[in-house]
Amino acid sequence: MGAYVAGGGEFNRDTNYITTRITADGADGYASEPGRYRLIVARACPWANRTIIVRRLLGLEDVLSIGFCGPTHDQRSWTFDLDPGGVDPVLKIPRLQDAYFARFPDYPKGITVPAIVEVSTGQVVTNDFAQITLDFSTEWAAYHREGAPQLYPEPLRDEIDEVAQRIYTEVNNGVYRCGFAGSQESYERAYDRLFTALDWLSERLADQRYLVGDTITEADVRLFTTLARFDPVYHGHFKCNRSKLAEMPVLWAYARDLFQTPGFGDTTDFVQIKQHYYIVHSDINPTGVVPKGPDLSNWLTPHGREALGGRPFGDGTPPGPTPEGERVPAGHGAG
Amino acid sequence: MGAYVAGGGEFNRDTNYITTRITADGADGYASEPGRYRLIVARACPWANRTIIVRRLLGLEDVLSIGFCGPTHDQRSWTFDLDPGGVDPVLKIPRLQDAYFARFPDYPKGITVPAIVEVSTGQVVTNDFAQITLDFSTEWAAYHREGAPQLYPEPLRDEIDEVAQRIYTEVNNGVYRCGFAGSQESYERAYDRLFTALDWLSERLADQRYLVGDTITEADVRLFTTLARFDPVYHGHFKCNRSKLAEMPVLWAYARDLFQTPGFGDTTDFVQIKQHYYIVHSDINPTGVVPKGPDLSNWLTPHGREALGGRPFGDGTPPGPTPEGERVPAGHGAG
Repeated sequence: MGAYVAGGGEFNRDTNYITTRITADGADGYASEPGRYRLIVARACPWANRTIIVRRLLGLEDVLSIGFCGPTHDQRSWTFDLDPGGVDPVLKIPRLQDAYFARFPDYPKGITVPAIVEVSTGQVVTNDFAQITLDFSTEWAAYHREGAPQLYPEPLRDEIDEVAQRIYTEVNNGVYRCGFAGSQESYERAYDRLFTALDWLSERLADQRYLVGDTITEADVRLFTTLARFDPVYHGHFKCNRSKLAEMPVLWAYARDLFQTPGFGDTTDFVQIKQHYYIVHSDINPTGVVPKGPDLSNWLTPHGREALGGRPFGDGTPPGPTPEGERVPAGHGAG
Repeated sequence: MGAYVAGGGEFNRDTNYITTRITADGADGYASEPGRYRLIVARACPWANRTIIVRRLLGLEDVLSIGFCGPTHDQRSWTFDLDPGGVDPVLKIPRLQDAYFARFPDYPKGITVPAIVEVSTGQVVTNDFAQITLDFSTEWAAYHREGAPQLYPEPLRDEIDEVAQRIYTEVNNGVYRCGFAGSQESYERAYDRLFTALDWLSERLADQRYLVGDTITEADVRLFTTLARFDPVYHGHFKCNRSKLAEMPVLWAYARDLFQTPGFGDTTDFVQIKQHYYIVHSDINPTGVVPKGPDLSNWLTPHGREALGGRPFGDGTPPGPTPEGERVPAGHGAG
C-alpha cells in the first residue's frame, strides 16, 4: 500500500479498496485471461510483496506480467522511476495514478500497490490486496504451473481466514499502529497488542512448521512479509523493539525457513524495503538517513525446522528460478 | 553533556569546557575539601553517568554531595524538575544555567552535565567531564573510602589514556556521529568507524576481563556508559544498528559483568536514559514517543566472565549499598 494518514491518536488504515474482482467467470467484467492484465507492485511494500510471492509460487509469471515501482513515492503516487525513462514499458505511464485516473478520473483515495491494471485500457481493475492473492489461488487456477502448491485449500479455508485475520489486525497492521501512533499511550497499547500476537504465533509455531496444516499456505505468505521487514525497519523505525525478530527463536527460525524457500527470500529486496520506509516517512525520520544495518547474513543460517516435518509444497513442487528481469538485484538480498 | 549542534555534514562535538580544576593543592583556587562542592548530574547522560559511577566506586558520597537534573531539558538548560518545587535543595536554583551564569554572566556555550558547583558561591567550577573523574581518582585521594579501587593507577596511565582516547573518539562520540550525521554519506562513514572500533574492543576483550590490566579502571567506566545505552537508544535512535549489543557476544558479556558489579548497574536508569534521547532530540524523533522496549531483563543473566580471571577491585573492595536518596528508582533498572 503506501498511502498513510497521520493520526492524532491511534492509526487506522483506510480499508476501502477497489473491490472489482478478476474471476474465472468474469462476473465483474474482468475474466482471468493470459496477457490481459499487468500486476503493479513495489518490492518495498509488504502488501505488494505478498502478490509477488504468490504469483511466483503458483507460476503465473507467463500469464500475468509484472511492473515494479521504485521504493519511494511522492505525496500522491508510486512511480516507475526504476524503468528506463521513468515509464512502465507496458503501460507507458510514469506514475501509477495514471492507471487509477484512467478508470476513476477523480479517484480520491490513496494510490496503492499492489494494483492490477488492464493493459488494453490502461485502467486499474483492483487494488484490493487481501483479495488479489486469494483470487490468484482460486480464480486463476486454470493457469497455475504444474506442481503449483495449494495455498488456499478448500478444507483449510476457515482456519486460514481466522489466522490471517488475526495476523492482519495484530501483526501486519500492528507494526504500523506502533509506528504511526499519535501519542505515547496509543503507542504503548499498540506495542503490547503486537507482542501479545507475536507471542501467540511463537507458541503456535513451536511444534508445527507452518501456520495451518503441514504445508505453506496463504497465511504463511501474509506473516512472512511482515517478519522480513521486522529487523530492518519495524524494530527501529516503528519502535517495535521489545526484541528483534532475531531474538525470538521460534519466529526467527520460521522466518528463515520460509526465506530459504524459493518464492520468499528471492522476492525480498532489503535495500528497497529500508529506502521506502526511512525516506517516505519524513514525519518519523526527518533526516531521511537510511540505516546501514542490520547485518542480514543471518537470514541464510540453518533453521532446523525440517525436524518438525511438514511438506512445504504439499503434493506440489517448488517454483523454478525467478525469470530474468524479475530478480532482486545483487546486493539487495541477504548475505 | 547535552548541548547539541545540528551539523550539515559530520557531527562535531564542541570540546571547549570550563577547565578550572579542583585539586589537592588548590592551584586554581579550588581545593578538594569535604562539603565545599556539589556534583550536578543527570542520570540519563553518559558523560555524567561516569561521574556517578566513579564517585560511588571511590566512596566520595560523604564529601561531595550530588544533585540530579531530570532526563529532559529545554532549549537552554538542564533543570531540577525532579526535585520538590523544581529547585535543587542545596543550591536553591531551578536550572543548572543559574550556576553557570553566577560565575560567567554571559556564558555563551552549552549548559552541560556533569558540572561541579561551589555551594557557598553557587558558581560552577568545572564541567570538564573528562578531567572530573580523573581528578576524583587523583586529587580527592585523601577522601577515598577504605578499600577504594585504583581506577587510574600510575603505572597504567599511558595505556588507559590511549585506550580511553580511542573509545572517546570512536565509541562514546561515535554513536553521536551516527545519530547526528547530516547526510547519508557522513552517516555511513560514522557507522563504519563505530563498528570498526567495537570489533576492535570485542577482540581486545575476548581473552581479558577488563580493558587495561586485570582490574576495573577509568577506561572501563568510560566504555560502560556508552554500552549501557546502546540497545535502549543508540541502536534505534542513532541508527547504530549493524547489531544490538546483545548480539555482540564478547562486548555483551563484558557489559553485563560490569552492570552486575556494584557502582555500574545500580547507577543506570534506563527509563531516564530513553526519555532523555527520545524526547530531547525532537529533530530526530518528532513524535516524542519513547520506545517501550527493549526488554532489559537480559542484563541480569550470567556472563561467565569470571572464568577470565581478573580482580574487579584489585586489592580493594566493592562499594557498599547506594546511599538512601541516591538510588535509581524501582522499575528504572534492569529486570
